[in-house]
Amino acid sequence: MPGQDAIPTINAGRLWDSLMEQAKIGPGRAGGLCRLALTDADCEVRTLFARWCREAGLDLRIDPLGNMFARREGRDPSLPPVAIGSHLDTQVAGGRFDGTLGVLAGIEIVRTLDDKGIVTRRPVEIINWTNEEGARFSPPMLASGAWAGVYGLDWALDRRDEAGLRFGDELARISQTGSGPLAQGHPLDAYFELHIEQGPILDAERLPVGIVSGTYAVRGMIVEVKGETAHTGPTPMDRRRNALVGAARLVAAVDDIGWAHHATGGKTTAARLVAWPNKPGILSDWAQVTVDCRHADPATADAMFAAMKHAMGEAARRARVEMRVIDEWAWGQVPFDPALIELLREQARAHGIPHRDILSQAGHDAYHVATAAPTAMIFSPCIGGVTHNEAEAIELEMTVPAVNLLLAAVIARANR
Amino acid sequence: MPGQDAIPTINAGRLWDSLMEQAKIGPGRAGGLCRLALTDADCEVRTLFARWCREAGLDLRIDPLGNMFARREGRDPSLPPVAIGSHLDTQVAGGRFDGTLGVLAGIEIVRTLDDKGIVTRRPVEIINWTNEEGARFSPPMLASGAWAGVYGLDWALDRRDEAGLRFGDELARISQTGSGPLAQGHPLDAYFELHIEQGPILDAERLPVGIVSGTYAVRGMIVEVKGETAHTGPTPMDRRRNALVGAARLVAAVDDIGWAHHATGGKTTAARLVAWPNKPGILSDWAQVTVDCRHADPATADAMFAAMKHAMGEAARRARVEMRVIDEWAWGQVPFDPALIELLREQARAHGIPHRDILSQAGHDAYHVATAAPTAMIFSPCIGGVTHNEAEAIELEMTVPAVNLLLAAVIARANR
Repeated sequence: MPGQDAIPTINAGRLWDSLMEQAKIGPGRAGGLCRLALTDADCEVRTLFARWCREAGLDLRIDPLGNMFARREGRDPSLPPVAIGSHLDTQVAGGRFDGTLGVLAGIEIVRTLDDKGIVTRRPVEIINWTNEEGARFSPPMLASGAWAGVYGLDWALDRRDEAGLRFGDELARISQTGSGPLAQGHPLDAYFELHIEQGPILDAERLPVGIVSGTYAVRGMIVEVKGETAHTGPTPMDRRRNALVGAARLVAAVDDIGWAHHATGGKTTAARLVAWPNKPGILSDWAQVTVDCRHADPATADAMFAAMKHAMGEAARRARVEMRVIDEWAWGQVPFDPALIELLREQARAHGIPHRDILSQAGHDAYHVATAAPTAMIFSPCIGGVTHNEAEAIELEMTVPAVNLLLAAVIARANR
Repeated sequence: MPGQDAIPTINAGRLWDSLMEQAKIGPGRAGGLCRLALTDADCEVRTLFARWCREAGLDLRIDPLGNMFARREGRDPSLPPVAIGSHLDTQVAGGRFDGTLGVLAGIEIVRTLDDKGIVTRRPVEIINWTNEEGARFSPPMLASGAWAGVYGLDWALDRRDEAGLRFGDELARISQTGSGPLAQGHPLDAYFELHIEQGPILDAERLPVGIVSGTYAVRGMIVEVKGETAHTGPTPMDRRRNALVGAARLVAAVDDIGWAHHATGGKTTAARLVAWPNKPGILSDWAQVTVDCRHADPATADAMFAAMKHAMGEAARRARVEMRVIDEWAWGQVPFDPALIELLREQARAHGIPHRDILSQAGHDAYHVATAAPTAMIFSPCIGGVTHNEAEAIELEMTVPAVNLLLAAVIARANR
């Protein structure tokens, strides 16, 4: 690519080797990863990350949430650092690159700076955020949120997994509880997060870089359904109050709403449905459903969410059950930093890296960090947009330009 | 009632006291019972039943499935016995009378025979069938089925609960494995099962007795759904293959089919839905759904089942998933014995007990027993038809006539 020799470039093979080495830890069932937060496998990959940091001469600090900060000192240690971060935990059937690419890109950038003998004015830090996926402890992005002050520290430490184990206890069990400062005690000059797109756009357009210019609006809720147990046999249809039927009707209606907005990129999800007793022979008297909707236009997302709530009433009526919203959330419209976004565009142009603006549709730690520090995100392609799937894959040559762009942006920002 | 003094009548208060005593064992959360098969609570109620049998001078025999046979000897011990049976296990949110009434009616009848000094020609046996509900080990009516030869003994002993525990091992754990004969080695002259109706008809008509003249046809299946995990955010609607959405669409469609046959007494049930990973952030790639349909007319039941299978294809298409039937069953049209049914009608008429013919819509041990011995069933009302619900209740005065009818029929048959 023209102009690439004008900036230091990373060692692509070394990045790949590191990606493959971390991918040995916490294997899934089908070539991907099952490395839930604060499990033994998570502890193992954290230990590997710490070893790499030590070998690169970085100073490692851990905060009370287990978030890891590895610091490469700058010429002026009194200045806030420029940070590069993402996460090393995965879904139960996760891929090898979701999150890990962003953390290992940080390692590779530090190694490249060392290779080239570059010392930046500001320090550079690599961050591994705990429990980004939310696959074990809800909500996702828990520890970056608590770091940024979006959640209280004690509340975060008190989250429990499905087995009832406490986040704080599991953190202590794997010896990952630190005493480092949270956002207020340790401001960042800037935060960059490189992540695979987790959608099909860049791969379809054969573009190696998406500069995240905005985010989808997301609205979600957990609905509790109350019915009545009864015999599955003699109970007449008009006496049944099957919570499972109510929950299923809601799921189907929410899916319809997603399809109604498909043409403009809208989508809805039913991610979780549990019922009780949920057994042959007896109708369920309780169920819980987790649903959300996403759209680039916040007003449309609001309209979709209103339609979902309307569908809730209709599903409840049809199944003769009661439904109520027991949790509800809205996010998106994250104020990523205009100056950092512009810096990424400038650097991409200056170094001839093909790119486009893109919207983020998933949640990322960057959303919370953006509330505490200037933040921007870079996306790189994943094949076919496949992610949260063990078959998730990337092409190295389509990934390296994003890491080089991140390197250039970090140098520029850290020398400011 | 006219004519009631012409037959021995039971001691209603003693029956009620026994019902209340068993109802202390395995309490639920809301006044009912949670006494799953082969749990410690089941062991406790079996021990109580055995004590009552011992106190009544009965000879107790247990077969390899844990089925309990308590024998009151007749004048001719060489003749096959007349049996009275039901079950003492319950659903997870079960009532105090479902099953237990039939077993305790047997105890009360034996006590009444003793009170009156009646010795029948044929022996009389009381049976407690293991695991009728299927709430712990699938299928329901497992042990009566294996006793009758509908299922193989080893197959039955090898069933596992959701925790993976084996039926045979759990039976041994509570010391309820016997060596008594199965149906072929111990033929019954007749089998009577008294059960609460588990439907609203008798209560609505204020009739104390339903003589079961036939059964609903039941068709059911377990459907496996295969989709693909993916991110709940960026994945476009037309790339999603959410197994949970497919399963939910099937549940909604099956419910619609039930409503379409509501006017003629048809019904459908979605009793169980499980999905994996079933977590926020990731689409599920697997689900399983248990559905069935019931109708008095077998041809209509067949048509309903065909519609359910058609709906399965449509739900799979809409959710872009694959569905296949992994288990399928058909029952009902049980050949209850015409002579026993007529005997019940005659005795009810002779003793002035108000009654009607009624169809059985639920499954009962009697269905399996009917394949090995002449069988008939009597229903008594439960308030509002509420059952498989902790609020299940009966009125004693609306129950006693059915027990007296059973007593009269047993005496008549056993003196034949």
